[in-house]
Formats: sequence, C-alpha cells, structure tokens
Amino acid sequence: MIELSNRKVGLIGNGSWATAIAKMLSKNLESFNWWVKDEYVKDSIINNRHNPNYLTDVEFNPNRLNISTNLNEVVANSDIIFIVVPSIYVENCLSKLTISLKDKFVVTSIKGIVPNHYKAVGQYLFDEFNLKQDQLGIVSGPCHAEEVALERLSYLTIAALDQNKAKIVADCLNCDFINTKLSNDIFGTEYGAILKNIYAIAAGIAHGLGYGDNFQAVLMSNGIREMNQILKQVDKTKRKINDSAYLGDLLVTGYSNFSRNRMFGNMIGKGYTVKATIMEMNMVAEGYYATKGIAIMNKDYKIKAPIIHAVYSILYEGTNPAKTIEKLSKKLD
Amino acid sequence: MIELSNRKVGLIGNGSWATAIAKMLSKNLESFNWWVKDEYVKDSIINNRHNPNYLTDVEFNPNRLNISTNLNEVVANSDIIFIVVPSIYVENCLSKLTISLKDKFVVTSIKGIVPNHYKAVGQYLFDEFNLKQDQLGIVSGPCHAEEVALERLSYLTIAALDQNKAKIVADCLNCDFINTKLSNDIFGTEYGAILKNIYAIAAGIAHGLGYGDNFQAVLMSNGIREMNQILKQVDKTKRKINDSAYLGDLLVTGYSNFSRNRMFGNMIGKGYTVKATIMEMNMVAEGYYATKGIAIMNKDYKIKAPIIHAVYSILYEGTNPAKTIEKLSKKLD
Repeated sequence: MIELSNRKVGLIGNGSWATAIAKMLSKNLESFNWWVKDEYVKDSIINNRHNPNYLTDVEFNPNRLNISTNLNEVVANSDIIFIVVPSIYVENCLSKLTISLKDKFVVTSIKGIVPNHYKAVGQYLFDEFNLKQDQLGIVSGPCHAEEVALERLSYLTIAALDQNKAKIVADCLNCDFINTKLSNDIFGTEYGAILKNIYAIAAGIAHGLGYGDNFQAVLMSNGIREMNQILKQVDKTKRKINDSAYLGDLLVTGYSNFSRNRMFGNMIGKGYTVKATIMEMNMVAEGYYATKGIAIMNKDYKIKAPIIHAVYSILYEGTNPAKTIEKLSKKLD
Repeated sequence: MIELSNRKVGLIGNGSWATAIAKMLSKNLESFNWWVKDEYVKDSIINNRHNPNYLTDVEFNPNRLNISTNLNEVVANSDIIFIVVPSIYVENCLSKLTISLKDKFVVTSIKGIVPNHYKAVGQYLFDEFNLKQDQLGIVSGPCHAEEVALERLSYLTIAALDQNKAKIVADCLNCDFINTKLSNDIFGTEYGAILKNIYAIAAGIAHGLGYGDNFQAVLMSNGIREMNQILKQVDKTKRKINDSAYLGDLLVTGYSNFSRNRMFGNMIGKGYTVKATIMEMNMVAEGYYATKGIAIMNKDYKIKAPIIHAVYSILYEGTNPAKTIEKLSKKLD
C-alpha cells in the first residue's frame, strides 16, 4: 500500500473502464471517493460488493469506498480526480459541477471526442473549465477493462507535463498486474487513443466486407503511419510512435473482436445502415464521433489520411462501404 | 496478361506458399516451369488440376505448366527462379543442383534460417552458389497463403537492388487480389520476415501461459522496436519499419491463430517440451531455427533483444517458460 496520505483521490464514472480503474485504485489506496450515476449502482456496490452492470466479478470492499451520487461532494473531497465516463456523457455529467477545478489535478481516461464540441476531452476541459495544461493527466492503454478484471498483466501509460504528478498517478494504479510507463505527451497520448478507434472502425468495416487477415495487417500498418502524421500536427512533443501507448493501443483495439468500435464497423461492413447499427448496438461507439471530430480537425492540418476519410465518407456521407474500401485499398501499401 | 516473353519463369517448391505463388504466376504468365518434389504431386496436378496436399481448392491448367520433378531441367529452362521451399529443406533440395545460377535471377520467399548453416537463405545462396547481390530478389508478405487461395486482397513487397528487376518480378505476381510494392531493402526484408517468426513464437508462448490481448499488444509493440534495432545492424539501407513488409508481416503472423510459429509457441507455453511439440506438430516451425540463428548473429551485434533472448533461453536452454516470460515482462514497456 503506497503512501498517498496527502492525496485524496476521486473517481467519476461507473462503466467498465471506470470499474477497472476502481479495481486498481483499491489495490493502492486506503480509500477513495467514487461518483456513480445511479443510486441502485451505489447500493449494489455497498450491499453486494459488485458493480451490477460492468465487470460484475470484481469485488470491492465498501468500507474503503466513499461512494456517492453527488458529483460536487466527490470533487470537493478529492485532490486528484479521475474522469472516466464515456465521451458522449461527459458534457451532461460535468454540467452538474459547481465546484471549481482550480486546485485539482484532473486525470482523464476517455478515448473520445465530446459530441457537439468536437474536441478531445482534455481540450474540452481546458476550454470549458479553465483547466491549465499542468493540471491534466491522461491514462492510456493498451488495456481492455475485461482483462484488468481477470488480473491479466497489462500496461498503462500515464502522461502529464510534470513527471512527478504522472508518477503520483502511476502509483495509484500500479499493482501486480498493472505496469505503468510515464510520458510527457499529453496531447499525443489522448489523440492517439481517440484515433485508434477510427482505425478499429475501419478494420471492422473491412472484416464485415470479407477482407481477411492479410488486408487487416496492411490496414494497421498504414493506420499507425497515418496516426503518426496526424499526431505530429496535433503536438510537436517528441514521441516514438511504436510505443505501447500508440501502436500497442491501436493493436489491442484494431485486433479485438470485443472492441465496440470494431463491432460498429463490422455491422456497417455487413450492410447495416449507420442508424440501424446505432439502434442495434443500443449505444454509439466512441469512434463514431471521433471520426467527425478528426475529419473536421484535419481540414486545417491537411494531412493525407485516407483511412480516416474513407470511414468519414461511409459514416457521414453515406458512401457505399464496399466501393469506398476498394478505393481505399488502392491508396494503401 | 503481361508481356514477359523474353523471361522464362521457374518455381521450386510445392508447399502451401509455393502453391500460392503458382496461383499468382498462373494469373500473369502463359506458362511457367514448376519443380515439385514427388511424382504423385506432379501427377495429381496434371491429372486432377490440384495440388493434393496444399491449397487443394486452387485449380491449375496443366496445359500451361511445365511441371517436373527434375530440378536441373526446371532451372536450366528458366531465367527467373522462385525458390519457395521451407528453409529446413533448402539445403537438401538444392544439393541436387548441378546447373550454374550464374545467369539467373533468383527470387526467394522463404522466411527462415538454413539449419546447420544458421544463415538467411539469401546469404546461404551468396555463400554456397556464388550468387551476386544483384541476382537476388525477395518476396515478402504480409500474406497467408490460405487467403491467396481465397483471392482475398493481399499485399506483397518485392525487394531487389535493381528496381527494374523488382518490377519484373512484381509483374509476375500482381493481379486483381495481389498488390505489390517495390523495395531495395533485400536484407532488411528477408531478415524482417525471419524475425517476425520469433516474435510469433513469443506471442504463442505468452498466449499458452494465459497472457491476454493487452499483453500481446505490448509484446508486438516491443517486438517491432526490437526488430528495427536488429535490422539496422543487419544492413544500413534506409527503411520505414512501419511499412507492411516489416510491421504488417509481424502482425499477420503474430496475431494469427493459424501461424505455425505461434502454434509452436502456444504448445510450449501450455507445457509441452520442445521435443514433444516438434513430434506433436510433425514439423519444425521456421522460427525454431531462426531463434538460434538470430541469437548467434546477435552475439556480434550486441543489440538488447529481450524477446529473442527469452525465446532462445526457453527453446535452447530449457528455462521455465512461465518464469522466463515473467522476467521478460518486466523489460517491456
């Protein structure tokens, strides 16, 4: 149990990734504050020791949790705040916040674009909550929450401008099945995590259309090169694109049959419309909004990003997936 | 049908990858010479139009094949010779060769080390057959033969010092389901294809031991960085390590449940001894010899190659797979 007595930690979110983070925090902290959306989730964790909806096998000790549905209470009582809600709910969730974030260190681990704003969550926090760059930390994979539940060895990258703060966050998460790596590339890490979902959608579309593993390997190889070009525009911080935070994160998502983004693409490739896919999945994959946000962003950057533009034209301009991916295949090498 | 009237093409080999190459050649050439090992394979292709053992669904037109079990006849009648036998049979196969290769352009697509010699096939041909560097072409994936049989879009890289010769080879293989890319990196392409089999063994061992997708992504991300360091020592030719010939080839093998190298590793991870694995598989995976060859080579290079050395110590020094991979996991990031 590491010494973080002067740091009070809060966690916002109750989805699968938030529950995985909660499991890691439980390994390191005597207690932490946890905001969950619904009373029945709070009650279930307190009374049954499990999140009723996500990673339901993970057991928590309620005596070591200050669990609450009052966002302001959780934020007020915390110095380090992990925001881990899906990007589509971030705006709504934080709209209830009346406490200032001025003295907080905010860690986000959300791999998406805030809808309507078309901004990464970090940028959104800067703009809407006057957060400073040195107040922001990013936690990135490659990491499926389900494997954290199973305690399978996984690696996280913690990015922050101040490496001491990154180290404090890492100390909250590090445990026998989690290795952490520090980075100063907050924007590259966040945007890499966002971009990989678009490539996972592309992989899903290709798979749905009947393309095989040979093509998938070429798609991922082109994808990481495309991501590298875009990240260079996003931020000039030096990075090695084949580090786990970028290439590893792309692979774990692009190759996973459990990735919601890949599944989303797969249904599109199999002939479902975008609307039908969203209805059928009963949710929107993060990559859906990311595709529009990144495509808008790239109007300024003017990077040749044929994979992103192919996904954009399929999802937002209604082009035929088979013809679009065939056209794309001629641009890959 | 492209014009290669002044080029006579020969193919040596009748395994699955040779059969896939034969299918591509059939798409482009009026006819070609094909050496197969056994009379019954020759008879089956002539009489039944199919290789009886590999990619048995692929149909050939025997009227457009000069098929023979006489190696010297095939080599004598060909200007461009594709050598596509598993690396463990190369020495035995070519021991029958009495015809000089002096005026031939030799294309190899063998992703392995010649046993006993512990050399890549290209190097072996230079040393044993006095081949010159400008006589050698390398054909590399990412490409499972099975997907070529299914005509699923695949990409090949053709490496040769002289790009005109690379282009001629590419024209023999290019078709509606094969895209080709030219390269001048003959050594990097060949060694990359060899190295990826070792990483696939590592992936298999980890999978057999119960490591998950999160770890696999980190392993591949570290693998491509390790490969890059080794290739820089092998040859100074400028290369982009994330091109399909390197990263793509690593991914298609490392992520494939059908890769024999990954399967080999998987059995080791599950507790089979090396000897039992070889007996059970009734064959030796290319990566088994590659591991020793590369480990020997790296004694000079002195590159930190923790993945290769972990696989080497498991396969050749009998270290415990679980402990070795656990030790390795602390060196990855």
